[in-house]
Amino acid sequence: MSKFWSERVWNLEPYVPGEQPKDKKYIKLNTNENPYPPSPRVLKAIKETCNSDLRLYPDPECESLRETIADYYGLKKEQIFIGNGSDELLAFSFMAFFNPGESAGKPVLFPDITYSFYPVYASLFNVDYETVALDEDFSVPVEKFYRENGGIILPNPNAPTGKYLPVESILSIVEKNPDSVVIIDEAYIDFGGRSVIPFIKQYPNLLVIHTLSKSRSLAGLRLGYALGSEELIQGLDRVKNSFNSYTVDRLAVAGAIEAFKDEEYFQETRKRIMETRDRVTKSLKSMGFEVTDSKANFIFIKSPLVDALTLFQKLKEEGILARHFNKPRISNYLRVSIGSEEEMDFFVNVMSRILEEFNNQM
Amino acid sequence: MSKFWSERVWNLEPYVPGEQPKDKKYIKLNTNENPYPPSPRVLKAIKETCNSDLRLYPDPECESLRETIADYYGLKKEQIFIGNGSDELLAFSFMAFFNPGESAGKPVLFPDITYSFYPVYASLFNVDYETVALDEDFSVPVEKFYRENGGIILPNPNAPTGKYLPVESILSIVEKNPDSVVIIDEAYIDFGGRSVIPFIKQYPNLLVIHTLSKSRSLAGLRLGYALGSEELIQGLDRVKNSFNSYTVDRLAVAGAIEAFKDEEYFQETRKRIMETRDRVTKSLKSMGFEVTDSKANFIFIKSPLVDALTLFQKLKEEGILARHFNKPRISNYLRVSIGSEEEMDFFVNVMSRILEEFNNQM
Repeated sequence: MSKFWSERVWNLEPYVPGEQPKDKKYIKLNTNENPYPPSPRVLKAIKETCNSDLRLYPDPECESLRETIADYYGLKKEQIFIGNGSDELLAFSFMAFFNPGESAGKPVLFPDITYSFYPVYASLFNVDYETVALDEDFSVPVEKFYRENGGIILPNPNAPTGKYLPVESILSIVEKNPDSVVIIDEAYIDFGGRSVIPFIKQYPNLLVIHTLSKSRSLAGLRLGYALGSEELIQGLDRVKNSFNSYTVDRLAVAGAIEAFKDEEYFQETRKRIMETRDRVTKSLKSMGFEVTDSKANFIFIKSPLVDALTLFQKLKEEGILARHFNKPRISNYLRVSIGSEEEMDFFVNVMSRILEEFNNQM
Repeated sequence: MSKFWSERVWNLEPYVPGEQPKDKKYIKLNTNENPYPPSPRVLKAIKETCNSDLRLYPDPECESLRETIADYYGLKKEQIFIGNGSDELLAFSFMAFFNPGESAGKPVLFPDITYSFYPVYASLFNVDYETVALDEDFSVPVEKFYRENGGIILPNPNAPTGKYLPVESILSIVEKNPDSVVIIDEAYIDFGGRSVIPFIKQYPNLLVIHTLSKSRSLAGLRLGYALGSEELIQGLDRVKNSFNSYTVDRLAVAGAIEAFKDEEYFQETRKRIMETRDRVTKSLKSMGFEVTDSKANFIFIKSPLVDALTLFQKLKEEGILARHFNKPRISNYLRVSIGSEEEMDFFVNVMSRILEEFNNQM
């Protein structure tokens, strides 16, 4: 603590991202990165951009990339906003759409088990919130979002459970809250879910947030985008232009454009990840693990035999990093990202060995 | 305006960056970019990084770059903070060090003529401020900062005037305000000023902000850094980790490291820009222009004959973009970035022609 910090900083409990260890080479199944490299076309475009004009500021409007994304989804570029990763978009959204201070019975709503950055934003921007308790099986109780609120934010699929809500359920939340902005964080939607993007034309209060970090293998490049009605996008624009005119660099813009153009690569890699996920799920279930039904590039698992922290440690000793959350209701689960086929074979083997060891001890 | 915007957004007047025109090729003297490309070593490092691991998140701590910068200035890496351009650092600093809400006689202080983003941050983060009027000749009246305040922010050299305050004056402001954070925005310091970086060890309330966009030719890459006592850097860290864990991408980190390693290239290009600036200043003065004494990579000029807006338009017709600020006290000035020798020869010729035209009309 320091006397130089603002009151805002004293009260913060910052978000803790997954480890990025430097001590040795792990199989990293802890931050939901993609096991496959970005499309070769992305890398080629970045190298070419290197040869021109890095001395000049980027286009603050990211117009070329917005046009590419608009074309991809059949929208107008005025319905697209580009940011430095989806976290920046979430931060801007909290500023743009959720009122600070006392909310007089209108808190922002999000699930009790969800992306753990949401309460951090709420604290940073002094936004009043209430959490909605997920059902016992981690399903989202849709009707609990039919109440007065100052905004709603919901990942679909949810993190860290991987559970997916069908489009109809999302739209019912959007429809029942015509005066609130409903933000659907679709970071993991490309791994088997159906996006609500086609409905942003119909609902001016619906904002959808995507990232290139997961399904497009570009976590190292920092790029996210938001899609919504023109008035919502203008709100984000006003915040960005009051915060940092140029948040996305020239190389990221060039790379991202090609990521959308190489559709074949995108389809192939996401298909491989979904197949691996379904295969690993089956294996773990046959070994007695509880595995939530995931439509993301990770699984959320629990052993009836070994507690999660022990499992986490054992995996780490074997060179595998998973993610453990020391939080109510989920402290006995591990989130495991879907790596390559080979990595996941190794993971399943290690898990089987750990279980055997415990069975022998009993 | 939209009913979905937060109160915060309704009241914003976003910053307006200089034009980035797409209609035709201009000589861009409007956003203080460097006329010379980045060091070839920077480009090589970026291309090499392209071939590895863009699918993985960057190091959220930017440790390798912080070590490089710490070595460069003889500091510890705990005294360095990395951001997505210096604008992001300024935004984080407003959050970290300036209290929101009513300030009870303790407003944040900055000059009336200065970087026009400061009042925008104040508005976005609800920070109370007062401006300190510069002297008639745009000098900073140092003793006006010897008063109760909630923080001080000051560019040195100042923008858009280019005027420089000697180290002793800056330090006297820092010393007279031991309970306030004093932020010195040294975006332009490498063009002839002396930095106060060596004094951060001595003053825990001094934060210095630098950018790679100007003297290191990397505006297109988005990288800035802050230097200060460990407690100030920890304050920034807490804000960043509550906002966006990874604001700087892998390519920017790799490129920035090489920018600091190629000292020869840095020294050579900044020297060339200073020489060009001094030569252009002389020419314009001999033509009757008023030119403030600049230690930046731009000059601030006024014609006794032609008003600034007319001059701006005439230059634009000739394919040259300058920057005009429609603001009290400076609306009859133009800010002109220092381009390459050839560009500035052309600029001086055009200016001379415009003046002649006006002389003939009189």
